[in-house]
Amino acid sequence: MSTLSPFTLHCRSSECGARRGEVRTLHGSIQTPVFMPVGTQATVKAVTPEDLTAMNAEIILGNTYHLFIRPGHELIRRFGGLHGFMHWDRSILTDSGGFQIFSLKDLATITEEGAAFRSHLDGSKLFLSPEDAVMVQEALGSDIMMCLDTCIPYPATREQTVASTELTTRWARRCRDAQNDTGQLLFGIVQGGMFPALRRSSAESLVDIGFDGYAIGGLSVGESKTLMTEMTEATVPHLPDAFPVYMMGVGTPADLVEGVWRGVDMFDCVMPTRNARNGQLFTSTGRIVIKNARYKDDTGPLDENCSCPTCRHYSRAYLRHLYQSREILSYHLNTIHNLHYYLNLMADMRRAIETDCLAAFRNDFYGRLEDE
Amino acid sequence: MSTLSPFTLHCRSSECGARRGEVRTLHGSIQTPVFMPVGTQATVKAVTPEDLTAMNAEIILGNTYHLFIRPGHELIRRFGGLHGFMHWDRSILTDSGGFQIFSLKDLATITEEGAAFRSHLDGSKLFLSPEDAVMVQEALGSDIMMCLDTCIPYPATREQTVASTELTTRWARRCRDAQNDTGQLLFGIVQGGMFPALRRSSAESLVDIGFDGYAIGGLSVGESKTLMTEMTEATVPHLPDAFPVYMMGVGTPADLVEGVWRGVDMFDCVMPTRNARNGQLFTSTGRIVIKNARYKDDTGPLDENCSCPTCRHYSRAYLRHLYQSREILSYHLNTIHNLHYYLNLMADMRRAIETDCLAAFRNDFYGRLEDE
Repeated sequence: MSTLSPFTLHCRSSECGARRGEVRTLHGSIQTPVFMPVGTQATVKAVTPEDLTAMNAEIILGNTYHLFIRPGHELIRRFGGLHGFMHWDRSILTDSGGFQIFSLKDLATITEEGAAFRSHLDGSKLFLSPEDAVMVQEALGSDIMMCLDTCIPYPATREQTVASTELTTRWARRCRDAQNDTGQLLFGIVQGGMFPALRRSSAESLVDIGFDGYAIGGLSVGESKTLMTEMTEATVPHLPDAFPVYMMGVGTPADLVEGVWRGVDMFDCVMPTRNARNGQLFTSTGRIVIKNARYKDDTGPLDENCSCPTCRHYSRAYLRHLYQSREILSYHLNTIHNLHYYLNLMADMRRAIETDCLAAFRNDFYGRLEDE
Repeated sequence: MSTLSPFTLHCRSSECGARRGEVRTLHGSIQTPVFMPVGTQATVKAVTPEDLTAMNAEIILGNTYHLFIRPGHELIRRFGGLHGFMHWDRSILTDSGGFQIFSLKDLATITEEGAAFRSHLDGSKLFLSPEDAVMVQEALGSDIMMCLDTCIPYPATREQTVASTELTTRWARRCRDAQNDTGQLLFGIVQGGMFPALRRSSAESLVDIGFDGYAIGGLSVGESKTLMTEMTEATVPHLPDAFPVYMMGVGTPADLVEGVWRGVDMFDCVMPTRNARNGQLFTSTGRIVIKNARYKDDTGPLDENCSCPTCRHYSRAYLRHLYQSREILSYHLNTIHNLHYYLNLMADMRRAIETDCLAAFRNDFYGRLEDE
């Protein structure tokens, strides 16, 4: 219900659409561009809140679908919301559950009223309307709530895309109307599939309703990098400059660089945490698959240019040993490193925008990569 | 080859055999009685060295058998031993591998020369003599090495027990002879099964050879608590008062209280770490099975009398949620708590011995238990 933007613009790049700003929430200020680690089930997998604070994560993401199913939003409400439940006192963004419900495929049915689906845990029948999605997120007490949206398969026809996008817009209005005056922010989600004109009309309709921020949904669903870039460029110019722009579920380090370049302020992705658990590590010179025999007696750190605890204290040989031995410490140390890499990349980009040298930074970023 | 004892006796209980002392190693001093967390594969499962330091663990245990097989002691030697490899600068005790090889059952053959066995990882044929066990532990660079011993099944005949115990003694002499002047301590292991006279003769033979400390092996193998206590009492009086006494692989919190009461200085056991991963938690009023539905919306800490990070920051309901969701953070937070419980129990007993009130402490310990 806020009419003022939670966003403050600090400066712009003279070279591209990138901008350096700040989003104010109930739990503090978030320096943007920002990457948000994903904490699906009220924990960012394999790390503690203290680890996240030490790596300067200012906001994390929770998944409404998962928390709705287990342990339930009413239980979490009794603990003072997600913040109290999981012992995290910085900002939290919750998604609406739309994407996860869509991922259930045959287990979900979308109607005008909302989404009927079956729990992936026990098959029980559940229903989530746009109003429910807001109510659940108010119970979770997140700082930034997302409107319930419908997701579009890729590829999709123009007809499918129009119908789905218009439903998302109608649901967005219902979400805005359902919202109580809790101080939580509510973001709308731009859909429109891979059609630039539909992206524009989706953005304009949402801006007409008026939200505290705008997300670009439906990307990183299997389309080419070129198409992802085109859709970003087809969306951002139609969003109001005074509000934060969030690209959902994206992406690789290069995707973040390209998103920032085009004016995106916020990102989230499971890639750093999930890849860490699979032994794939991001470094300044590219990705490392730690189980590779070449690291068996490698005494060096994962990344010589990294200052994270994993790189300061452990060798590639030790990290390989932990991974091969399926030790829990492997997941922990790898996750610390990958999240540090992502957060540090964003911090570097924030500095590059401040000093207006993002083009040089971007060239250097690609120049360092050896194997991607 | 030290002839002086690494042990300093600070004070004794006037009520029982308990004693308060200190063991000096290459990496510092260890206050006794002490509990040693088990770090089988060069990591104490689910926690970092920093976590262990924060909970004041002064010594941890590594398993020679596991490290010999993967990643290999020669690799670890190149990293400055286990300390450098795993980033731990306090003391480490390594077992000899005897117990693990014995646990392989049909995959192992014991001869006068040593133990022939097959790797549990790839079935490859391996051999470990007493001299090899010392050589491997010297490569690992542990502060306290253990002699290779043979383990006795339970139950066993007197004849079996005599033969096995005498072989352990001959191997102990070979270990002592094989040892180089590295400053590492070497402990002998008393066997003798469930026969008091054999316990005594085993102890006396080892004392004749002369070690830096003495371990009580072959307990917690299925025998009754009464028998375990009898064997402890049949062994400790025959060990020299000036040297540390270590009870291997024991045990429950009550086992630690009873061991300390009878003069044991050092303990190790996988129970706090393994049970943590299975959701079984030790508290001042007994054990908690965290998956139990009664904790679903329990806002209280695991243990109101505990000052560990898990109890300070998280509710039973949250810990139950993490366990039910199979989140890695569950293993981490549970392990932090259980190890803190064990280490704190030992710290409490050290204080009780210093103030000569161990009998009162022991009564209070049993009086608090609700469900064991």
